Amino acid sequence: MELWFTEMQTPYLKLSFQVKEILAQTKSTCQEIVVLDTEVFGRVLVLDGFIQVTQMDEYIYHEMISHVPLVTHGSPGEVLVIGGGDGGTVREVLKHPEIKKITLVEIDAEVVEVCRRYLPETGSYLDDRRVHIQIEDGLEFLKNNPEQFDVIIVDSTEPVGPAKTLFSREFFRSCWNALKEDGVMVSQTESPFYNRDILERSFQLTRELFPRCGTYFAPVPSYPGGIWSFTIGSGRRNPCKIEAKEKAQSINTRCRYYSPHIHESSFSLFPLYPGKGEG
Amino acid sequence: MELWFTEMQTPYLKLSFQVKEILAQTKSTCQEIVVLDTEVFGRVLVLDGFIQVTQMDEYIYHEMISHVPLVTHGSPGEVLVIGGGDGGTVREVLKHPEIKKITLVEIDAEVVEVCRRYLPETGSYLDDRRVHIQIEDGLEFLKNNPEQFDVIIVDSTEPVGPAKTLFSREFFRSCWNALKEDGVMVSQTESPFYNRDILERSFQLTRELFPRCGTYFAPVPSYPGGIWSFTIGSGRRNPCKIEAKEKAQSINTRCRYYSPHIHESSFSLFPLYPGKGEG
Repeated sequence: MELWFTEMQTPYLKLSFQVKEILAQTKSTCQEIVVLDTEVFGRVLVLDGFIQVTQMDEYIYHEMISHVPLVTHGSPGEVLVIGGGDGGTVREVLKHPEIKKITLVEIDAEVVEVCRRYLPETGSYLDDRRVHIQIEDGLEFLKNNPEQFDVIIVDSTEPVGPAKTLFSREFFRSCWNALKEDGVMVSQTESPFYNRDILERSFQLTRELFPRCGTYFAPVPSYPGGIWSFTIGSGRRNPCKIEAKEKAQSINTRCRYYSPHIHESSFSLFPLYPGKGEG
Repeated sequence: MELWFTEMQTPYLKLSFQVKEILAQTKSTCQEIVVLDTEVFGRVLVLDGFIQVTQMDEYIYHEMISHVPLVTHGSPGEVLVIGGGDGGTVREVLKHPEIKKITLVEIDAEVVEVCRRYLPETGSYLDDRRVHIQIEDGLEFLKNNPEQFDVIIVDSTEPVGPAKTLFSREFFRSCWNALKEDGVMVSQTESPFYNRDILERSFQLTRELFPRCGTYFAPVPSYPGGIWSFTIGSGRRNPCKIEAKEKAQSINTRCRYYSPHIHESSFSLFPLYPGKGEG
């Protein structure tokens, strides 16, 4: 028997890959959670039918969503990750030696459990003593938590399911309020080809709040269109031009994709967005 | 009735899109030629089951395969295009005012005819008086033609069908011999994720011949993995650092994707390749 999984990337576009084995399939209160073992991507985490994490390319996504804001900040001690229950972003944040505490706010406890069990390359980092896991909606957490952070990383799913509130003006404002003065916020903002409305709106919301902002891109072949966008806002430092050069170099040695060259080049991949760190 | 076209991107990975209408379907002596009208990509040229050109994203591929080598050269008068029977590369080359003659060597006369008829945004440029079309295999043409070119652009199909010879050492050497001293050659070299062997071999063959070489990348969502590679060799000028800055700026104003920023950044998208124009 040949088993194929199909993702509806848009109503008119499908990506399908052959499945060797279904490792997990469950419904939480939030969504359907599936882990597949595949020929082309290795193990794959699928939430509500959308590919979230694959062993083949997760390193690019997780390195880029983490190191661009952390290197921009320069000395991040306290980091908030919203979403990211798979642990990949936490793994990358932990590569920065100054990190004192990572608060991970994930809405779905079962995602965390499934990833701990089936995706140890990312999930095992959730057990580090510096990681504090809070099972809660990201916006609700921000409303009730008085802590201030150096960096906020919004590592969400698509804006159609449980992550819908994470693309609202209220959410961006709450992040801005929860950052220290020189704080940095980054959000995953979908495909520049198939979700340009989301990307443009997120860029606009970021620009309304942050003195400096920009959009950068990274190749993620398992995501629709193969290239993904991240929108970053910074209270002080220019995210597109590395000031903390030594830090960038030292992180580079612990990465497969991120480098200072790639950091700066990733902002110059599309002519669509005005922000080049100048705000 | 719902009609879907499926491309086998690898034996384990398929991309499918909905088809509104089959505009052309024919078999030439070389391959099967199909033109589809689709919701997501507009019109699509498919050769032997592989997507070649879509109205949605062809501008990125054609601008990048053309302007990076032409701006690197600085003053290209005579250009050889191998493959490219759709006319998209020719359209871009014609944006350079110094162009005196473009020789297009396409193996399949029927591709040229089909594109003239169904893809006028690219095909109509084949009728420019500066374009000389030769229906012949690229390697055979180079063996028998004594002309010398400023720039050679290898705009081929996958290395499995009629384009197989265009990835051989003999072909790269023939291109090198057909270039003037400061000449520039570029080849499309497939996906950095799914065809890394082809990319690495092409880079190696280029480095054996050219004093300066490099690999650059551009997003093409309709191609496997969504990001595409181009390998460039240059007789004199560094392809990764623009010398002809005014030329780059003036071409920028006539492009939707290419810009001097993108030109230089496109070389820093993957940490895999040693060549950064230093040879």
